[in-house]
Amino acid sequence: MTRLQDFMKTYTPLIELELSRVFPEHWHVPDKLMESMRYSLLSGGKRLRPLMVLAAAQAVGGDPQRVLPIACAVELVHTYSLIHDDLPAMDNDDYRRGKLTNHKVFGEDIAILAGDGLLTHAFYTLVQAARQHGLPAEIALDIIEDLSSYAGAAGMVGGQAADMMAEQGATNLEELTYIHLHKTSDLLVFSLKAGARAAGAGKQQLEALERYGRSIGLAFQIQDDILDVIGDEAKLGKRPNSDHAQAKVTYPFYIGLEASREKVKELTEEGKKALEEGGLLDPSTLLELADYLLDREH
Amino acid sequence: MTRLQDFMKTYTPLIELELSRVFPEHWHVPDKLMESMRYSLLSGGKRLRPLMVLAAAQAVGGDPQRVLPIACAVELVHTYSLIHDDLPAMDNDDYRRGKLTNHKVFGEDIAILAGDGLLTHAFYTLVQAARQHGLPAEIALDIIEDLSSYAGAAGMVGGQAADMMAEQGATNLEELTYIHLHKTSDLLVFSLKAGARAAGAGKQQLEALERYGRSIGLAFQIQDDILDVIGDEAKLGKRPNSDHAQAKVTYPFYIGLEASREKVKELTEEGKKALEEGGLLDPSTLLELADYLLDREH
Repeated sequence: MTRLQDFMKTYTPLIELELSRVFPEHWHVPDKLMESMRYSLLSGGKRLRPLMVLAAAQAVGGDPQRVLPIACAVELVHTYSLIHDDLPAMDNDDYRRGKLTNHKVFGEDIAILAGDGLLTHAFYTLVQAARQHGLPAEIALDIIEDLSSYAGAAGMVGGQAADMMAEQGATNLEELTYIHLHKTSDLLVFSLKAGARAAGAGKQQLEALERYGRSIGLAFQIQDDILDVIGDEAKLGKRPNSDHAQAKVTYPFYIGLEASREKVKELTEEGKKALEEGGLLDPSTLLELADYLLDREH
Repeated sequence: MTRLQDFMKTYTPLIELELSRVFPEHWHVPDKLMESMRYSLLSGGKRLRPLMVLAAAQAVGGDPQRVLPIACAVELVHTYSLIHDDLPAMDNDDYRRGKLTNHKVFGEDIAILAGDGLLTHAFYTLVQAARQHGLPAEIALDIIEDLSSYAGAAGMVGGQAADMMAEQGATNLEELTYIHLHKTSDLLVFSLKAGARAAGAGKQQLEALERYGRSIGLAFQIQDDILDVIGDEAKLGKRPNSDHAQAKVTYPFYIGLEASREKVKELTEEGKKALEEGGLLDPSTLLELADYLLDREH
């Protein structure tokens, strides 16, 4: 078993457990709202972002278990963004990971509110990291500032807005890169920096993790684009870009499939190089993670 | 001029100024998203919640100007909640304060994202209160914890969810009170406690402000119910509850108009009493505010 597999096997169950009890038991929340939030939060998934929080803590010599509340905060934000992105006014998706999307089960009104509730609760969870897990208040504030920047209008929400606008009109490769960096890289960068900050990382380490997160986040999205195009080819029996009426704008659309594959490899190497030069004590899990993301088939 | 009028005249322009520059100038936010957020944030309104933040700071002997960032954070949250509440899947309103609602101008997708961005930015603004205005990190964390509780699934979002569900089925006075307390009182209580915490309030003072906020928040909503019913009577020429097909569930619906008016007075007196017994140094602005809310006509 590789180091990464071992890491996932150890920590994924702990992340699931922590997520299952992320809402205080004494809280009085309307049943349907609570069901809706838990439906999406506890519907599986790879827990990639929480694992990155833990691996970043490990990379700077910290204990992954101590940053579990921060890992939960990231997953709360990620889950809220999926619920809102799936709404009819956005991507209008009926299914996610083989299950009905939140609004198909609970209605649009509750789905919007479930997203709002999950986002708000991410900040509660970060405060609890300080209150119950001994994180110094100053560091907790740094992490809260990061989350509100990377997940906000200049970050993830801005990326999603740009994506919505791009689907309504012409766009270009620069715009697509902006969308990928903000929709995807920003929350990965937050995950890495937050885990590392909580474990006492210094400036050089944080910068290395930021470079790594930006690179592999962009690689991850281009890989998604590639898989989309290949999937469409297999399903539709036609080549990408050929008379593809509802073509999603993708990296292969602009630079072709082979150049996109090269770009993924190049970005992955850049990300790994940033880690290796970043003065990290133990980056091996994160290094393996970069290759794992590159090699995935879905 | 009364103390309250003087207070409003002094501080409302400062609140407007602070709101107008709440997003850092160097932030790269998609234009349409930024326009959408600013459209709703800077569309006037009484700025009641920001004024309560400032008045609560004054009540415990602090300087209202120093809590302006906290006042902005509350208004960001209030504005996001209005944008999301107005959406077609929620209250489906086309106008607010005589202007088109956010989604009518910018589309539902951008309106949802503008709400998400404003909510996220409230937390950024609270961190800035610590970073730039010398608020101790521990107190900033207390305030962030309060916001994430009072505005979240067990607070304002829970109240809105209960309201949505109540409109779809039978409800009762207890449920209506839950809705009013969470949809309205919770953010008022947060405003008061946050302003007071930042100005160094003690436990007894915070409890008094909480009791005051709960009471006048509920009074405010019942007054809204009364004005709704009276407005309908004037417009429709019929008495409340009489064959009113699309009757909104209101306090007068359950206990009648006169008893509702009595309840508003009673709650206002309770709120004022809490202030007078709360060991506050200078509660006069807040005392006047309670009467001001009671007497309003719209």
